[in-house]
Amino acid sequence: SSSSKILIKGGTVVNAHQQEIADVYIEDGIIVAVKPSIKVSDDVTVLDATGKFVMPGGIDPHTHLGMEFMGTQSVDDFFSGQAAALAGGTTMHIDFVIPVNGSLSAGLEAYKDKAKKSCMDYGFHMAITKWDEIVSREMEIMVKEQGINSFKFFMAYKGALMINDELLLEGLKKCKSLGALAMVHAENGDAVFEGQKKMIELGITGPEGHALSRPPVLEGEATARAIRLAGFVNTPLYVVHVMSTDAMEEIARARKSGQRVIGEPVVSGLVLDDSGIWDPDFTTAAKYVMSPPIRASGHDKALQAALSTGILQLVGTDHCVFNSTQKAFGIDDFRKIPNGVNGIEERMHLVWDTMVESGQISVTDYVRLTSTECARIFNIYPRKGAILAGSDADIIIFNPSSSFEITTRSHHSRSDTNVFEGKRGKGKVEVTIAGGRVLWNNGELNVVPGSGKFIKMPPYSYLFGGIDKADAKYLSSLQAPVKRSKAAT
Amino acid sequence: SSSSKILIKGGTVVNAHQQEIADVYIEDGIIVAVKPSIKVSDDVTVLDATGKFVMPGGIDPHTHLGMEFMGTQSVDDFFSGQAAALAGGTTMHIDFVIPVNGSLSAGLEAYKDKAKKSCMDYGFHMAITKWDEIVSREMEIMVKEQGINSFKFFMAYKGALMINDELLLEGLKKCKSLGALAMVHAENGDAVFEGQKKMIELGITGPEGHALSRPPVLEGEATARAIRLAGFVNTPLYVVHVMSTDAMEEIARARKSGQRVIGEPVVSGLVLDDSGIWDPDFTTAAKYVMSPPIRASGHDKALQAALSTGILQLVGTDHCVFNSTQKAFGIDDFRKIPNGVNGIEERMHLVWDTMVESGQISVTDYVRLTSTECARIFNIYPRKGAILAGSDADIIIFNPSSSFEITTRSHHSRSDTNVFEGKRGKGKVEVTIAGGRVLWNNGELNVVPGSGKFIKMPPYSYLFGGIDKADAKYLSSLQAPVKRSKAAT
Amino acid sequence: SSSSKILIKGGTVVNAHQQEIADVYIEDGIIVAVKPSIKVSDDVTVLDATGKFVMPGGIDPHTHLGMEFMGTQSVDDFFSGQAAALAGGTTMHIDFVIPVNGSLSAGLEAYKDKAKKSCMDYGFHMAITKWDEIVSREMEIMVKEQGINSFKFFMAYKGALMINDELLLEGLKKCKSLGALAMVHAENGDAVFEGQKKMIELGITGPEGHALSRPPVLEGEATARAIRLAGFVNTPLYVVHVMSTDAMEEIARARKSGQRVIGEPVVSGLVLDDSGIWDPDFTTAAKYVMSPPIRASGHDKALQAALSTGILQLVGTDHCVFNSTQKAFGIDDFRKIPNGVNGIEERMHLVWDTMVESGQISVTDYVRLTSTECARIFNIYPRKGAILAGSDADIIIFNPSSSFEITTRSHHSRSDTNVFEGKRGKGKVEVTIAGGRVLWNNGELNVVPGSGKFIKMPPYSYLFGGIDKADAKYLSSLQAPVKRSKAAT
Amino acid sequence: SSSSKILIKGGTVVNAHQQEIADVYIEDGIIVAVKPSIKVSDDVTVLDATGKFVMPGGIDPHTHLGMEFMGTQSVDDFFSGQAAALAGGTTMHIDFVIPVNGSLSAGLEAYKDKAKKSCMDYGFHMAITKWDEIVSREMEIMVKEQGINSFKFFMAYKGALMINDELLLEGLKKCKSLGALAMVHAENGDAVFEGQKKMIELGITGPEGHALSRPPVLEGEATARAIRLAGFVNTPLYVVHVMSTDAMEEIARARKSGQRVIGEPVVSGLVLDDSGIWDPDFTTAAKYVMSPPIRASGHDKALQAALSTGILQLVGTDHCVFNSTQKAFGIDDFRKIPNGVNGIEERMHLVWDTMVESGQISVTDYVRLTSTECARIFNIYPRKGAILAGSDADIIIFNPSSSFEITTRSHHSRSDTNVFEGKRGKGKVEVTIAGGRVLWNNGELNVVPGSGKFIKMPPYSYLFGGIDKADAKYLSSLQAPVKRSKAAT
Ligand SMILES: [Zn+2]
Ligand SMILES: [Zn+2]
Ligand SMILES: [Zn+2]
Ligand SMILES: [Zn+2]
Ligand SMILES: [Zn+2]
Ligand SMILES: [Zn+2]
Ligand SMILES: [Zn+2]
Ligand SMILES: [Zn+2]
Repeated sequence: SSSSKILIKGGTVVNAHQQEIADVYIEDGIIVAVKPSIKVSDDVTVLDATGKFVMPGGIDPHTHLGMEFMGTQSVDDFFSGQAAALAGGTTMHIDFVIPVNGSLSAGLEAYKDKAKKSCMDYGFHMAITKWDEIVSREMEIMVKEQGINSFKFFMAYKGALMINDELLLEGLKKCKSLGALAMVHAENGDAVFEGQKKMIELGITGPEGHALSRPPVLEGEATARAIRLAGFVNTPLYVVHVMSTDAMEEIARARKSGQRVIGEPVVSGLVLDDSGIWDPDFTTAAKYVMSPPIRASGHDKALQAALSTGILQLVGTDHCVFNSTQKAFGIDDFRKIPNGVNGIEERMHLVWDTMVESGQISVTDYVRLTSTECARIFNIYPRKGAILAGSDADIIIFNPSSSFEITTRSHHSRSDTNVFEGKRGKGKVEVTIAGGRVLWNNGELNVVPGSGKFIKMPPYSYLFGGIDKADAKYLSSLQAPVKRSKAAT
Repeated sequence: SSSSKILIKGGTVVNAHQQEIADVYIEDGIIVAVKPSIKVSDDVTVLDATGKFVMPGGIDPHTHLGMEFMGTQSVDDFFSGQAAALAGGTTMHIDFVIPVNGSLSAGLEAYKDKAKKSCMDYGFHMAITKWDEIVSREMEIMVKEQGINSFKFFMAYKGALMINDELLLEGLKKCKSLGALAMVHAENGDAVFEGQKKMIELGITGPEGHALSRPPVLEGEATARAIRLAGFVNTPLYVVHVMSTDAMEEIARARKSGQRVIGEPVVSGLVLDDSGIWDPDFTTAAKYVMSPPIRASGHDKALQAALSTGILQLVGTDHCVFNSTQKAFGIDDFRKIPNGVNGIEERMHLVWDTMVESGQISVTDYVRLTSTECARIFNIYPRKGAILAGSDADIIIFNPSSSFEITTRSHHSRSDTNVFEGKRGKGKVEVTIAGGRVLWNNGELNVVPGSGKFIKMPPYSYLFGGIDKADAKYLSSLQAPVKRSKAAT
Repeated sequence: SSSSKILIKGGTVVNAHQQEIADVYIEDGIIVAVKPSIKVSDDVTVLDATGKFVMPGGIDPHTHLGMEFMGTQSVDDFFSGQAAALAGGTTMHIDFVIPVNGSLSAGLEAYKDKAKKSCMDYGFHMAITKWDEIVSREMEIMVKEQGINSFKFFMAYKGALMINDELLLEGLKKCKSLGALAMVHAENGDAVFEGQKKMIELGITGPEGHALSRPPVLEGEATARAIRLAGFVNTPLYVVHVMSTDAMEEIARARKSGQRVIGEPVVSGLVLDDSGIWDPDFTTAAKYVMSPPIRASGHDKALQAALSTGILQLVGTDHCVFNSTQKAFGIDDFRKIPNGVNGIEERMHLVWDTMVESGQISVTDYVRLTSTECARIFNIYPRKGAILAGSDADIIIFNPSSSFEITTRSHHSRSDTNVFEGKRGKGKVEVTIAGGRVLWNNGELNVVPGSGKFIKMPPYSYLFGGIDKADAKYLSSLQAPVKRSKAAT
Repeated sequence: SSSSKILIKGGTVVNAHQQEIADVYIEDGIIVAVKPSIKVSDDVTVLDATGKFVMPGGIDPHTHLGMEFMGTQSVDDFFSGQAAALAGGTTMHIDFVIPVNGSLSAGLEAYKDKAKKSCMDYGFHMAITKWDEIVSREMEIMVKEQGINSFKFFMAYKGALMINDELLLEGLKKCKSLGALAMVHAENGDAVFEGQKKMIELGITGPEGHALSRPPVLEGEATARAIRLAGFVNTPLYVVHVMSTDAMEEIARARKSGQRVIGEPVVSGLVLDDSGIWDPDFTTAAKYVMSPPIRASGHDKALQAALSTGILQLVGTDHCVFNSTQKAFGIDDFRKIPNGVNGIEERMHLVWDTMVESGQISVTDYVRLTSTECARIFNIYPRKGAILAGSDADIIIFNPSSSFEITTRSHHSRSDTNVFEGKRGKGKVEVTIAGGRVLWNNGELNVVPGSGKFIKMPPYSYLFGGIDKADAKYLSSLQAPVKRSKAAT
């Protein structure tokens, strides 16, 4: 059924840099031509895209499929999560490898295993949770041999994943030396721990205690700290899940001063507010528990605004879902509710509705922040993130006149809840092509475990361009060391 | 000599969205193909670009060629100014039509005349200096019939070009209704006038009085005001010649909140500081007189930083040169020194050296802010600002290993001074192709008056995308009018 | 009844700089002694203040009693408004003289007349609504002969009171030369006018149109402009009725940079939000109409916070009340609703409840921002604003354990509505002594028309201290004029 | 000579809240009366202050006398440092007790010993350098029994005094529970450590390496962090030695939002820039080494501006002096140069010259920020910091027409260098009275070891006013815990 030759006819082809009416011709998983009026032979599958947008498939920079966390495992694995992604127009994601007892290579092996059932392309970030010479050497191997070009540091989750400033500094330096991108989960973990204790003492044990224990100021603090330490080391920084105005303001401030900081809002933070976590039904309230928390109304609008003008650059999901029974581990103590929400299937639709339909961004912007910028940051552009001759054939056909509705009943995740339950909007992903095959068409998924490929991501993305020159210029500007005759004093 | 068929071989072709090693084939002024290893017949002129960058020719968004101003005329006309531009790698510019006694059509006629001798492509902005029904109707004609899509409002030059807030509001509304971009020269003209009087009273009549009479706070004020009024009307705004941290900060603030504001630093503001205007030699000091003034050291670095991260978007020149004899009109009173500096020839080299060589931006960024973004803003992309099949053949070959030096002796402007005198740096525009012809090659200019074309610029650039949707959403959010029974009170 | 000798025994005497348990002894309208255990003879009226605060009477810096405005007159005149003030613990106010056809002296005569019925002390600010040599000379007379040391400029009310930047600059310079304080009503009047037209065009003719037509951004704009122009002239500035975060942020920014800017929130802006103006009952909605408008929830809290740390300095009321029949002039067009709300009676109680009871400020702070700082700014401290030997005997006895409730039924204003209707809180002004006489005691008012005095306010308050030195230092720092040999060019 | 009865005649008596021409009468170390024309008997020493200012003696909130640090001891002990202080118009200081092996009580004993030779009054802050139950209990004893109401946390000096966020949070909570003020030395110690290593690796071993290794961004970071953690706990915070715009901006931001943060610039940071540390003479360069470092030009002016408008509140010195031979410990490695500069003698003169003579503040402001505000913050006002009946007789007579010059030759410190060498300015402390005795008069010091008293400082200063109410209000606002029926999920 899924021919190796496809022609998408008559659509408006949208790249981040340009949109034009053109046909797209695909062979063997690669885009061969993008131009008007392509003639093809009869063995080619032809998809009519007239009146529709033909766009690069979404790339989700932030997922946790099959992740072991808080004593359980997220229910969407590399197959179900990716199937959901494809049904929602996303054709690649980047997941976070968690080290095993601090060992990066053991972690990588475990994730390679998890990923064997993949039905779409994926890449890996790697978390760093402790520091020693072995970790330092393993980072080098990951970058030079294993196709990983980004490392994440958790400034929260005290007693588990959290690292301190000393380790963060070591990590930033190592990342810089390798041309790898440092990422941070930015919350002050010591203060969160304190906040949690306080809530429990106050008898606030329900999900709202989660939000109250880690207010925006703690996200703003850690974001400011990570940015300044990265600036001190002079290496680029990627702040994952920017959930609050507090964090966004710090990113804006740094960028204004020329610092290379990337801010990733996630779709839950962009379109939801914290009202859900106050729901009197525990199951409902618990499904909204993620970290940093979904914030009070107002933060969402501010994040959208910053995203519209490039203060923030791309949208992720932090897709990490747990079923109601898992969430119920924390029925008596919010600290035991596994953290995480869905989004991998909903992101493309919700970003369209929230940002394009509201008039905040253009269609080319949409492509940039759902796909292209992610590919550029993780250095796989224009193989990914573009509809250009030579690019991978990861493409969606999007009908702006159609509409979508999100419900647990119809979603493709294994989760038994959905934080976006009931959301409707304009626009619909009608076709998803990944690796040159039509995997989603008119509500039909056609996915095969094992068909997805690991995408190696090389170091030294554009974010590293000129860093060496800037360093050299800084050093030569120092007027130091001062020549001194060390006379007796 | 300049064949209609050209092949540029082996260079690194740089667009704002991507760079790749490829050949570029040109026929009859249009780029026909961009791909590796193009084979051509013998009648094609072949230029070897191995080891060099092949980039879109620069577009200068801000020039004043042959402008009547302060009782005299700027010495570079459409021929000499464009010749200088081409020698410096710029292949298009946008000049400001000044109305004649407030008449836009009369102004346009005059500028069409001035532009007859053009040797490269050009477009027009239009200044608005008074307001009545005729002006309002003429704006419509300019947009719909004359290919002008931007209007500039001077918040300074009291008694001459300056408009007040009432006119600015009318202008912003009209611009919005036409899909035309409003531009502002942002200084508080009343306060500048006051500042000038004060300096004269203090006996400070020399060029330094110019800088002292219009400090950064007055630029910051007007920038903030224009931004807020544009926000109030909800129409995009373009701030010309952002010269100070004060103005830049306002732009950053607006963008963070999602407002569509474009900030244009000019090359003199990016690379110079105010020390020159204190020179004890009048001729030297006077050549630096422009408005807003070149600021104290520190503003330049801050503008560079903001430019590097997209807080500011493109670089202009405000090229408007006067000879020493003209500048000497103000020997006894700085208020009579014609305002203006050069830059049209130097911009491409100085931006490279200051931004790329220093490690602040990448080569693709360089293309974006010297060419592509200008083409996008003024809605002529990808005809201009790109090296894509179908684009105009406006191309430079840039040698990053070579070097440049700026001197009055060798520049191509008619000016007898140069504010960048003595500046040296890395990189050199070796070849400039405009309209498909090699006009600059190895230090030889080959330009023909009358060969440049007027480029019509259509309204509703990307900056207007979604404005109508956002307006509609705002109106529907108002919960007004409130239904009231007008009972007796 | 109101003896000329009073002893207040056993209370906690609070000054802005200190609180202590002490007795206060008064003779002939003047405080004679403040110390523990004062012994007095039998002819002295003794008031027991044990367990209560003895504080300087409130000074309201911003009222409009008997003001002609928008074709009618505010209903509280100098008698009824002052009676209400006294019942609420305020013992002095400063009202704004409005020129008659631009004539300051004619305006002053009119206000002297209005003030004849005064029952408590008062001072005058003077509005400036046009500019010529006569106005300039009259300002001098007002300051040197008439005891007026502050002039207000309206940046809004286009076609009526509004002045432009040119006049504002002249006014600022004149104020500086006289040691008089410049005050601004800061909204962009041109944009407000535009906003009003737009609302009417949209069919939004009700009171909510008032709020929608003049959003916070227009207050922020004008505040920023006034601050920068005052900074340019280097003279202190007083921003009346700071109603929005936008304006407050500008004041904060200026103060951080060392500029002398005073911000006056008013009690309606501190404790109300804009919900009232959406009320479906016109009379209710219309009573909230004032300019700048009462803002959306959030602005109030931000203003309180800024007030608590001294970013804002004192609290006024803008008391200017119109009856429902007057408000009904605008039943079909919000532009005709007379602008103004009450507050002169409620200010002391509401500031206590909102700021002290909530834990945001101390009792000494309370005295500072309701009384002392006003006296200092208008240069009548320590005659007013203090309980010190030698100060005027304007004193309240405040019971923090009691409580208050605000209703139209019981208020002393002539207004038939009250924007604070139904507000309750802790604390009660039990006794008000003004001019050494007990005018309010246990719910009984005892006021006599004509007993209030005009308080002359001398120029050169503390805000002017060092301005001359700073100016001299600035000038000597200029390194200008540059010595130049005017050689041939 | 130093009679127990003194009359200061005819001066302008300045308190923070008021200045007036009055006489001051002193008996037995206490001010008995402040009023015009006091008549006294013949046994009273009369000092004529006509034409001069009579002000509260300075209080230095930040000194390190006889401190063991970096393997040596600061050379000014409680006698020589206090003698210098008195010669410069300072009559009280607060020193930092350093625990002995973490023991607060052992530290206190040691400092009581050091202080036995005191010749003027003093108080103690206490540093906290580790955390356990004993420390926690000792803090309580210090506050309740020993008269200490402030605790300092070092966020720098890794491996020595530095604490981490977990300890800081514990400390903040404990401080809050005791009504004690938390103070921070705010620099990111991990990053400083990293910066130091880097400088050494670069071969920058001289004093300039000290400044380069700990740039302003690290001070800004730690200041932001401490402020946010204090805000999270909701307890007041005092930031010692604010040396940079970066730190000041954070304080300004917090205060704008209503947070109670005190910022203490020190005189070296206010009046010097970093040029000295680049001096080619090691001894000269090394004398400027303190932490945080003295910053580049521009920071000084910004700190002055913020001080002038109350964004910063009082001025300290961090007086901690080492001789050239001690500074030379670091001749080959800046990390071994003992950190510290002088200032206890110079502060009053330099603040006058920099702030009052320049026109930035008034004389009452001067009293506030050199004396009164310190007394208020540390809860000893009006015993200290005021010239009121009942206050301690700590008074200076200051001649604004005289002048001063600072040189090592004439200073009273034991240090063989002075960072203010050669500074001259207007104004002179002619007489210093402390404890009711004339200790400095016309260049003559008359001091007696052992005559100084320890001043107990009680907890719950004004900074704690309302904290409990605000906490209660916050808790009641939470709408938590949510009532939930824990139904099956
Ligand atoms: Zn995370
Ligand atoms: Zn995550
Ligand atoms: Zn201009
Ligand atoms: Zn221009
Ligand atoms: Zn007003
Ligand atoms: Zn008013
Ligand atoms: Zn310190
Ligand atoms: Zn210290």
